Amino acid sequence: MSSIRILGVDTSLRSTGVAVIEVTGQKMRALAYGNIHNKPRVLHSECLAAIHREIDALIEEFSPEEVAIEGAFFAKNAKTAMILGQARGAVLALSALRGLPVYEYSPRSVKLAVVGVGSAQKGQVGAMVTRLLGLADPPQEDAADALAIAICHTHQRGAPEALRSKAI
Amino acid sequence: MSSIRILGVDTSLRSTGVAVIEVTGQKMRALAYGNIHNKPRVLHSECLAAIHREIDALIEEFSPEEVAIEGAFFAKNAKTAMILGQARGAVLALSALRGLPVYEYSPRSVKLAVVGVGSAQKGQVGAMVTRLLGLADPPQEDAADALAIAICHTHQRGAPEALRSKAI
Repeated sequence: MSSIRILGVDTSLRSTGVAVIEVTGQKMRALAYGNIHNKPRVLHSECLAAIHREIDALIEEFSPEEVAIEGAFFAKNAKTAMILGQARGAVLALSALRGLPVYEYSPRSVKLAVVGVGSAQKGQVGAMVTRLLGLADPPQEDAADALAIAICHTHQRGAPEALRSKAI
Repeated sequence: MSSIRILGVDTSLRSTGVAVIEVTGQKMRALAYGNIHNKPRVLHSECLAAIHREIDALIEEFSPEEVAIEGAFFAKNAKTAMILGQARGAVLALSALRGLPVYEYSPRSVKLAVVGVGSAQKGQVGAMVTRLLGLADPPQEDAADALAIAICHTHQRGAPEALRSKAI
């Protein structure tokens, strides 16, 4: 049975969650997950380079075929949106440079896909991700979100074409 | 006399102005300038990869030592800020990956540095850039802005340390 590898990214400047899962039929397993931590006083440009480098290393090691990120549909204000946009820009540019299509999902659809409730709490997402992937322990919060985003994308891939999310 | 090369970038998703200037004492000359044009319907991730690729080629060819970009201090709303942020993120990540420090300047300080008036019009910036660099013709608008940003940075470099702009 053919399988596909998906890279999920929960993007932010100081703690970007990353995950690679492999899907074979109905079976999913986590190949890698963690978070890219940038210390508070590190320059923005250096944080973004670290995000690029670490994700590039994951792509190199695990050869994912598609990327899923959380859409930023509810940025509070222009300043927050700009900083988040910068982190997203680093991830989007890198993905396209490596020939990987990127799909985005709203926080609500990620929770809906994983927990079954669009307004689920962080803890519920972590617990469901742990169960769905058969992990020994609940992952760090941003890594759990990245796993959830990747899982959300696997559901989408099975949807009829007209309902499928578009690459960005 | 030692000289320095500066890469100026006027960042946007669909038309990023780029310029490399060389400064030797009081003398400045333009080594390259133009704009990276992305067609309207190209995916954001592909636009950002194109920005990365073209700027990387400029860095490769001209070996600039510092990067200057226009600060986005006045993004109109969260959506605009997000899109501009993504383009900035691609440029910031790449600069740091190549070991180049990035400095940002407000649109007002760029105009002030080049025209002498913070509220100068686009046409005035183009005309002054053409004169200061002894160009045969006025450059395309975004390329002119990128040249102006690079020129603004050369002025800053001569300022007393306390007044100098900080890397981002």
